[in-house]
Amino acid sequence: MSHIRSRFSKPAEDKVISYTTSLPFDRRLYPEDILGSIAHARMLGRRGIISPGEAGELEAGLLAVKQELDEGRFVFKPELEDIHMAIESRLFELKGEVAGKLHTARSRNDQVALDTRMYVKRKLGELVDGLKNLQKALVRVADENREVIMPGCTHLQHAQPVLFAHHLLAYFEMLQRDKGRARDCLARTDCLPLGSGALAGTGFDIDREQVAHELGFGQVSQNSMDAVSDRDFVVEFEACASLVMMHLSRLAEEIILWSTSEYGFITLDDAYSTGSSIMPQKRNPDVAELGRGKTGRVYGHLVAMLTTLKSLPLSYNRDLQEDKEGLFDTADTVLSSLDVFAGMVATMQVNRQAMLEAAGRGYTLATDVADYLVKKGLSFREAHRITGRLVSYAAGPGKGLEELSLDEYRRFSDAFEKDVLDITVESAVKARNLPGGTAPQQVARALEKARATIEG
Amino acid sequence: MSHIRSRFSKPAEDKVISYTTSLPFDRRLYPEDILGSIAHARMLGRRGIISPGEAGELEAGLLAVKQELDEGRFVFKPELEDIHMAIESRLFELKGEVAGKLHTARSRNDQVALDTRMYVKRKLGELVDGLKNLQKALVRVADENREVIMPGCTHLQHAQPVLFAHHLLAYFEMLQRDKGRARDCLARTDCLPLGSGALAGTGFDIDREQVAHELGFGQVSQNSMDAVSDRDFVVEFEACASLVMMHLSRLAEEIILWSTSEYGFITLDDAYSTGSSIMPQKRNPDVAELGRGKTGRVYGHLVAMLTTLKSLPLSYNRDLQEDKEGLFDTADTVLSSLDVFAGMVATMQVNRQAMLEAAGRGYTLATDVADYLVKKGLSFREAHRITGRLVSYAAGPGKGLEELSLDEYRRFSDAFEKDVLDITVESAVKARNLPGGTAPQQVARALEKARATIEG
Amino acid sequence: MSHIRSRFSKPAEDKVISYTTSLPFDRRLYPEDILGSIAHARMLGRRGIISPGEAGELEAGLLAVKQELDEGRFVFKPELEDIHMAIESRLFELKGEVAGKLHTARSRNDQVALDTRMYVKRKLGELVDGLKNLQKALVRVADENREVIMPGCTHLQHAQPVLFAHHLLAYFEMLQRDKGRARDCLARTDCLPLGSGALAGTGFDIDREQVAHELGFGQVSQNSMDAVSDRDFVVEFEACASLVMMHLSRLAEEIILWSTSEYGFITLDDAYSTGSSIMPQKRNPDVAELGRGKTGRVYGHLVAMLTTLKSLPLSYNRDLQEDKEGLFDTADTVLSSLDVFAGMVATMQVNRQAMLEAAGRGYTLATDVADYLVKKGLSFREAHRITGRLVSYAAGPGKGLEELSLDEYRRFSDAFEKDVLDITVESAVKARNLPGGTAPQQVARALEKARATIEG
Amino acid sequence: MSHIRSRFSKPAEDKVISYTTSLPFDRRLYPEDILGSIAHARMLGRRGIISPGEAGELEAGLLAVKQELDEGRFVFKPELEDIHMAIESRLFELKGEVAGKLHTARSRNDQVALDTRMYVKRKLGELVDGLKNLQKALVRVADENREVIMPGCTHLQHAQPVLFAHHLLAYFEMLQRDKGRARDCLARTDCLPLGSGALAGTGFDIDREQVAHELGFGQVSQNSMDAVSDRDFVVEFEACASLVMMHLSRLAEEIILWSTSEYGFITLDDAYSTGSSIMPQKRNPDVAELGRGKTGRVYGHLVAMLTTLKSLPLSYNRDLQEDKEGLFDTADTVLSSLDVFAGMVATMQVNRQAMLEAAGRGYTLATDVADYLVKKGLSFREAHRITGRLVSYAAGPGKGLEELSLDEYRRFSDAFEKDVLDITVESAVKARNLPGGTAPQQVARALEKARATIEG
Repeated sequence: MSHIRSRFSKPAEDKVISYTTSLPFDRRLYPEDILGSIAHARMLGRRGIISPGEAGELEAGLLAVKQELDEGRFVFKPELEDIHMAIESRLFELKGEVAGKLHTARSRNDQVALDTRMYVKRKLGELVDGLKNLQKALVRVADENREVIMPGCTHLQHAQPVLFAHHLLAYFEMLQRDKGRARDCLARTDCLPLGSGALAGTGFDIDREQVAHELGFGQVSQNSMDAVSDRDFVVEFEACASLVMMHLSRLAEEIILWSTSEYGFITLDDAYSTGSSIMPQKRNPDVAELGRGKTGRVYGHLVAMLTTLKSLPLSYNRDLQEDKEGLFDTADTVLSSLDVFAGMVATMQVNRQAMLEAAGRGYTLATDVADYLVKKGLSFREAHRITGRLVSYAAGPGKGLEELSLDEYRRFSDAFEKDVLDITVESAVKARNLPGGTAPQQVARALEKARATIEG
Repeated sequence: MSHIRSRFSKPAEDKVISYTTSLPFDRRLYPEDILGSIAHARMLGRRGIISPGEAGELEAGLLAVKQELDEGRFVFKPELEDIHMAIESRLFELKGEVAGKLHTARSRNDQVALDTRMYVKRKLGELVDGLKNLQKALVRVADENREVIMPGCTHLQHAQPVLFAHHLLAYFEMLQRDKGRARDCLARTDCLPLGSGALAGTGFDIDREQVAHELGFGQVSQNSMDAVSDRDFVVEFEACASLVMMHLSRLAEEIILWSTSEYGFITLDDAYSTGSSIMPQKRNPDVAELGRGKTGRVYGHLVAMLTTLKSLPLSYNRDLQEDKEGLFDTADTVLSSLDVFAGMVATMQVNRQAMLEAAGRGYTLATDVADYLVKKGLSFREAHRITGRLVSYAAGPGKGLEELSLDEYRRFSDAFEKDVLDITVESAVKARNLPGGTAPQQVARALEKARATIEG
Repeated sequence: MSHIRSRFSKPAEDKVISYTTSLPFDRRLYPEDILGSIAHARMLGRRGIISPGEAGELEAGLLAVKQELDEGRFVFKPELEDIHMAIESRLFELKGEVAGKLHTARSRNDQVALDTRMYVKRKLGELVDGLKNLQKALVRVADENREVIMPGCTHLQHAQPVLFAHHLLAYFEMLQRDKGRARDCLARTDCLPLGSGALAGTGFDIDREQVAHELGFGQVSQNSMDAVSDRDFVVEFEACASLVMMHLSRLAEEIILWSTSEYGFITLDDAYSTGSSIMPQKRNPDVAELGRGKTGRVYGHLVAMLTTLKSLPLSYNRDLQEDKEGLFDTADTVLSSLDVFAGMVATMQVNRQAMLEAAGRGYTLATDVADYLVKKGLSFREAHRITGRLVSYAAGPGKGLEELSLDEYRRFSDAFEKDVLDITVESAVKARNLPGGTAPQQVARALEKARATIEG
Repeated sequence: MSHIRSRFSKPAEDKVISYTTSLPFDRRLYPEDILGSIAHARMLGRRGIISPGEAGELEAGLLAVKQELDEGRFVFKPELEDIHMAIESRLFELKGEVAGKLHTARSRNDQVALDTRMYVKRKLGELVDGLKNLQKALVRVADENREVIMPGCTHLQHAQPVLFAHHLLAYFEMLQRDKGRARDCLARTDCLPLGSGALAGTGFDIDREQVAHELGFGQVSQNSMDAVSDRDFVVEFEACASLVMMHLSRLAEEIILWSTSEYGFITLDDAYSTGSSIMPQKRNPDVAELGRGKTGRVYGHLVAMLTTLKSLPLSYNRDLQEDKEGLFDTADTVLSSLDVFAGMVATMQVNRQAMLEAAGRGYTLATDVADYLVKKGLSFREAHRITGRLVSYAAGPGKGLEELSLDEYRRFSDAFEKDVLDITVESAVKARNLPGGTAPQQVARALEKARATIEG
């Protein structure tokens, strides 16, 4: 029976132990837990709360435990309820009674808050890297296909021709915002909770700033009751991840569409395609589908954490233990998704001809015809009306606008002159030559900027 | 390279394999997978699609694989992407080429739908049992404390006295509805998808009814495209579980409140309490808190599945693989929560005196005083107004209504007579003698009915 | 200042009133509120709790109030916090002091539970009708296009040819399950809470069964504390609606895809298409898109209600007032969506030729070739492998399987004979002739059954 | 029939119009819409795309429309599908054909993105103000009750005494993080989408920077396809608001608990309390309950938006119209909640004596006793064990630790000396004198800092 239960007359039921234990999952926090404990022990030693010799003993013991864990030799005893107790208990075995001094001026409440923050900080760094990595793949494919024109869609209906590179760079922008959010979240996570004790602070004369410095924290928490019960940073991480997954789900949707035999815009590499157990011909975009599907999982973790925190009184409550599994799975999911999406994008084959042919279908030049009329002096609304009728006229026999003669054009407005026949998919793309527009010049500039951003 | 990839020129990337594999989690479906395969093989044999000898070979091989799995001897090879391929691959090793006949007239799409339905059916049975078990605990504690009066609250403010048994039986009713929902879900899950093939049915002359009968399904699916892409039953299971967890979170909240030193209504058994790493005096209701916290997790799984299914075109898409982890965790969470809550409730100590004392505080008899006036002929609104003033009068010096003299009562209304002094906590409880009310007679009847319901 | 505040020394702040009022939205419950009050008043009269004359007065007054509301003449005073008080207050104006007797043996807690249940019952009936209506549209279009073959997809890749009617009937099945869930929800909602008082029942000798009978309830609630705090039926309604919306989002996704110029499988009717403010050529499937988008809204309401109920102690808490807006919007959304989807489906034009041409593309006959080999005695796995190679061989020069000669077939297996050339899109569809399969005979049977189901 | 439908042969169905219209809710965007249009018109004029006279006409017309809207004189015609068309249509009535020039070089896609961003920017400003306002109330109450000691809890069990001010300041910290998130969200929202056209940019030579400057935007969007389909800022706003509501739900929970007759720590002001329709004595904390309940609503909106955006292909799709109602309701809910909570906190009466008495109950000094032993040289674990036994010993007869004699102490350890009797609630609070701790000196410093933060 753990010393924690010294006031109880009987042990917890087995099913209670297995219900309440976090050891099966919080073991992932062991590197953070041990680093945090070492910093704590050193500080205790420097402050004279324990002797320097004791501090040294503790550090040596903790490093030994870490090595066992690193090498997979550590034996997890199910009756120890969490990774903190498992490590401390092993420390007792290795170092004897001095181990009992490690927890001086500390509680599991501030200890687990520390470990979790260190973990989230690490994962936010990896998230930024993962985002950059996918950005790189997008920029490379965009660059390699600078001239490729495709149909730009609204409502999945052909709207106006755009550069394929422009389309890909839209995702670059989304990921750029994701990086910004990750960095903002990092700034708020970068706050040392240790020293908050169970909830009120500690009565020992500890040095929080020193521990913060040693562990690379930029600030220390300002209120102990808040510090032990705050999981905002977990929610914020999951909200950031949800937005990343949402962006990936949009990209996935498009990749899936583009890979259909109806679209045929891209062909996924064999290494990113899967087959069927029954249909020998299949090349399925499973990676994109799974990424799209995993969006649900990350949204779910966000909802779970928000639900768990709702209405919790201060300060620490055991409900908070529920923060970890969702957090770990969120990090695993978003990082692995970014990784495979980068590979999938980098290796996909772009079917330029199919895109170009499609770019002209569906009256995508109608806006340019309307704009032509505006430039001839008509009001936009009038120009819109005339072009609408023109499209109806052409659509009847299934003709494209480019198949109409000048005479036919002029039946709808005298403002049409010979140069209306110069409107092409290429001219349409070129016309949108303003910041953020799809003209080749703008896209080239955007590519340059994107590359600089990734490096920076 | 798996035969499934026979049309591809290169293998999947390692990271793609680890991203797409479901083997780490869908191995839990092996009992269902093997039972389903045996039923399928038998039917193929009886129909002459394979020879009876082949069917026998397949069944023997599958049973051998099952034994390996049961005994933990089965070796999971990470390159096999799911439990279906892992089992079939082992079957090849054990039985040779005949193994290749098992998948005749079947696809993984209908196979995994079958396995998942069988799993959900099993878990729904366990859910009903778990609900019954907690109902039993509630009924027992209610029965043992039949006479105990406590303050009934609205807005957490004392409202009217009620029997503690009546309060507990409110949870009985919630769980009763949960059982109803579980049974309704079971009826819809009880539908054999096998025979739907990849999406269109199969060209072999199979006998779906026979397989259904052998596997204990009440009906066969009516549309193959729906059958392979339907995960309604997973959503419905998770919705049922969400409601169960919501009910447990409400019970947990009350148990946590009742265990505070402010309330002191109950004392949790030592076996259901936990201590603190820093504060030696603590007896924390961690089981109740975790149950409350785990509500978030189950809500999250529901959201995840609904999100994943949103906008999926027919028929099977790999997104659907995301159904399993959330489903498994939902089942584990709700079943273990019911189990520990039953134990927690059954062993908690009820502090009758504390409840009774509290029952009279907070002017809980005010409604009875107002009702008294109504019975003397006043309108309810008038009676309410008078009693409101009476409460204000008594609250000034902090007196209870029972401390007022008849004279004082009569200052507010001539309708008060001597018998107003007979209004007590006990009389108030007794007065609510209608179906669903808290009078001892009604509660006794409800207890009887509850017991009969659980048995039935 | 309302009589409810008779014990308070000052009125609520204006901003508190506007924060807490439910009058702007719960006014929608007035028909239920008045019907419920009339049944209550009649029962009070029959029981002699009020005089028959008073009961008659109350009923007449309530009917007069109802008429004012029906005719839009009712004046809503913002200081009355909810529809119950607004109606009662008007009753006072019309009928004087007798109005004060209506609330005898009743509380707003059981009153609002009653109103909400009556509303949900009504909406569940409309939901079943709306589902039937969309089913009818699906069946009609399926029937009119019985012979139309399209590519059946998994992973949005062409898999096997199917009947378009079969595809549509997959949605019929989904809606059929939705109807089942709505009916199960109705059975649980059909339970009278009136008589539960504030939380403990009432001290008056009322007749709950009679009220239940008069209001068309099949049962009365069994526990007063549960009855006033139970909103399971709202959650269940929203869960049902979430599944309906999920199904509509899937249908919407397909309609949007089929309407693209890449697919061209259907053309939406002009009355169900919208234009663009800038691009004159656009025909956007906005109705389908909005239906897909509104899925989020309904999921959100489900999450909101589950969140609100989490951890609520018994019995009534003001949090419960948050049940209504989400409920109303859920009902409005799901009913209007079903309605417009029925119209959109019924009027869409099916481009049979485009579907048929696509049906043969993408090696959709590969499974049939593999099945052919199995019928010649090969194991399924072997047949799958051979066909995989065959597809690779054909795909190189971009040929379809139907373009291969027998000689070419035989290069891959001797088992191929002349009849392999008889495999066509039509034969493939016809082959899947088992319950749930896509063969014309099965689909005809399914259509008949569907029609019978809708009528029944 | 709107000119937008010029290519259609028939009008939309009535039910389609009412399903697709956004006019009933997006009218709230009219101030943003008109400001944006004026800036656009001016720029068109300055650029010579329209004449300066036309620009002036448009501006005058738009201001006239705005006045009609401000004064409630504007007539909304249901057949106009959104606020943009409603305003433009009125502009036609007032100014004639020139109105048709306003939409030059613009699409509703970039227009609505602009309006929504302007709205969110405004609301983020109000959110920061609302957060500050509640912070002020917390600081004021904390300051007025600087000396008040209460029981600090973990698991809702008494843990260690803390200052009530320290407890309140925990909420200050939460709101401080909320402000940070709001500001970060503002920085990302502060990006002009106008100029993105329908999706590809525009062919007119517009000046985006000038419009940005005029409308107070810090940057212009970098990719037109992203700009018209990006609703990240809505999700981020709702995620910020969800965290705010989560914090309020925690505060609400505590206020509700503290207001119970069991706790009695605070009394809500009459102006923030509500009564009961049936129980005349009730003082219900409805404001706190509603705030807690409304958490669900905001979470729901977040889920709704995330769901709606999942898997949306680029660029604009009508699903995006679903962004508004949830956004508006989120803003309304979070702002009104902050407002009433500020009032509720500022006016609540603090029952110091009740808090102080409770502070000593439940062995809250046990940690200090254990720390005492550590300072005498014992290891923390040993000290914890001894104190655990001491608490068990005292708890038997129901004694507090302060009631034990030195002799009794020394039965458990020789390390106890006379000064152990000096451990009091006050000494315990004072001991935690480190940054973030509950010692009066620290709390005073924290209060000062808080005040400075609010001002700054």
